[in-house]
Amino acid sequence: MSQDSRPAGDLRKTGMSLQHDREWDYELDRVISAVDERGAETVGLQFPEGLKRRGPGVADDLRDILPEDVSVLISGQPCYGACDLDTELMRRSDVFVHFGHSPMKESESIIYVPLFSNVEVEPIIESAMGTELPDPDADPDVGLVTTAQHMNKFDGMKAQLESEGYTVHTRRGDERLTHEGQVLGCNYASADIDAEQILYVGGGKFHPLGLAMEHQDKHVVIADPVNNTVSVAEPDQFLKERYATVHKAMDAETWGIIYCTKIGQGRWEQAKEIVDDNDNAYLITMDEITPDRLLNFGLDAYVNTGCPRITTDDGPQFDSPMLTPGEYRIAIGEKPLEELEFDTFHGTW
Amino acid sequence: MSQDSRPAGDLRKTGMSLQHDREWDYELDRVISAVDERGAETVGLQFPEGLKRRGPGVADDLRDILPEDVSVLISGQPCYGACDLDTELMRRSDVFVHFGHSPMKESESIIYVPLFSNVEVEPIIESAMGTELPDPDADPDVGLVTTAQHMNKFDGMKAQLESEGYTVHTRRGDERLTHEGQVLGCNYASADIDAEQILYVGGGKFHPLGLAMEHQDKHVVIADPVNNTVSVAEPDQFLKERYATVHKAMDAETWGIIYCTKIGQGRWEQAKEIVDDNDNAYLITMDEITPDRLLNFGLDAYVNTGCPRITTDDGPQFDSPMLTPGEYRIAIGEKPLEELEFDTFHGTW
Repeated sequence: MSQDSRPAGDLRKTGMSLQHDREWDYELDRVISAVDERGAETVGLQFPEGLKRRGPGVADDLRDILPEDVSVLISGQPCYGACDLDTELMRRSDVFVHFGHSPMKESESIIYVPLFSNVEVEPIIESAMGTELPDPDADPDVGLVTTAQHMNKFDGMKAQLESEGYTVHTRRGDERLTHEGQVLGCNYASADIDAEQILYVGGGKFHPLGLAMEHQDKHVVIADPVNNTVSVAEPDQFLKERYATVHKAMDAETWGIIYCTKIGQGRWEQAKEIVDDNDNAYLITMDEITPDRLLNFGLDAYVNTGCPRITTDDGPQFDSPMLTPGEYRIAIGEKPLEELEFDTFHGTW
Repeated sequence: MSQDSRPAGDLRKTGMSLQHDREWDYELDRVISAVDERGAETVGLQFPEGLKRRGPGVADDLRDILPEDVSVLISGQPCYGACDLDTELMRRSDVFVHFGHSPMKESESIIYVPLFSNVEVEPIIESAMGTELPDPDADPDVGLVTTAQHMNKFDGMKAQLESEGYTVHTRRGDERLTHEGQVLGCNYASADIDAEQILYVGGGKFHPLGLAMEHQDKHVVIADPVNNTVSVAEPDQFLKERYATVHKAMDAETWGIIYCTKIGQGRWEQAKEIVDDNDNAYLITMDEITPDRLLNFGLDAYVNTGCPRITTDDGPQFDSPMLTPGEYRIAIGEKPLEELEFDTFHGTW
């Protein structure tokens, strides 16, 4: 499957868009200190998909400075978040560095390098205030959320809104989130605030669509500083796709229930509960959840208890319907269709 | 990538061809005893690609007999050999069952169920003797090899050849192979015998092509009892492809050196040696080696130190040239083109 053939909502092209040739601060001094302190012989580096291309260059920079007998290994496993640590490479590395995401859980054995964006956010927030975000006189309450890569500018965003007369509502969300105001593709708990409208500052369609699906009663304004656009999230098309998929799955007799073995993507209880209650459901374990892998089993429908975004964003690429755990309850008639909601992921590991 | 789009030499369609609706003996009594002895709560099942479809049925049979509180988990990871154990599922299972391959290394924590084929081999060996295999009067010496799934008939094959006047040469190969006369897709040490001709009994093109490439000086006759055909292995097309790929890689400036993390597919020393000697080579670790995963790195060429068959059989699907470690030495000018040979894998883990 080439990157080009992927539909909107692609996990790989967002968040870390390469449209701007940004320079990141890889914080190599932290890596070098750790190698020195631990007398490390192997350093493992893990990059998200959009930054893998920078891996060899970062390895070059490290090899120039590190003693010659230190091996630098780059993870070739797909990586879509801090939930997605290459635990195999971790085991093989004396120092393990995860680039591009904020920690889902602090650990002494992992160096997290967040790679904050250096794109300015003021101009696009200014645009949003003049257009899609109602005037503070009409409704001063606004929720503010952003992604890990813009977290370093969060206080500035808040101050900018307040200086124009808005009352800014923020919260940290739950333990899966590192920062106040941060959203993940699978967790929008930071947007559970007392305001009718939410301003999302960040790139891509991936996060705001999840946000709009999770908070269908709110007006979600997207201020995208990377593509320099302001828009309003419209989850209708996505919802229609979900309804269609659930309908198709209603005829299924056999079910594959996927338990994802990635460190931050496993929901064992949910998977187990379904299999325990349904004699025609089979528990299947895997890390990457792809159409190819499921095709071999030939079951009528699947339930993905791992990363919710694979179900909603990659779903149409699978040969059989793939549902979220909540959608499964609708498909088997345990819940009415109106209770269809976005699948979010809480907790760490 | 769908199964249909794969070229000849496909790893997934061979060995366990489903063209005949064979019934296998899953030896479930061994599994049930182990659950009982260990008081197991979880049973993990791993099937090769061609038999994954049988997984749910085998799970049904087990669940009918096992106590209700025992969970049966099926591996959704790709599996192409005994070198390819799902170690993640192993860790999560009290009893772990690997179907369809003979043990690469005996272990108390794994139940290997070989799944011997029930296809008769006498008729096709009879055909081979009358056609592609020279008359014993002309040359009585013949090497005999087969795959794991026909090993239960090996003594019969040998007796059949001897009764016609052949002198049958067999050997066990090395420690990677369980049985006398057994070949793997990556190891043909059992064919290192004192005979000009080798009779391979088994299905698919996968094994005999490797055999013919590894033993280019021998006459390799394929007696395929599954498709009921006799033929002679012709490695020329494959060799041409390899030469073309090596030529393309001669222009490469940057190299990705892949170290495979699958339990039986890692050749660390080979990977490390290349990276230590070449400043423009980067060590990349992964389990599944796919075009998608390498595309993100954007390097000029790759060397695969993991499963040799991925290089030779899937190679044309990769966007950049992918070489075996031996071919790399030719591409960088350390060895002449004439020394191109088939990459085989020795040792276990």
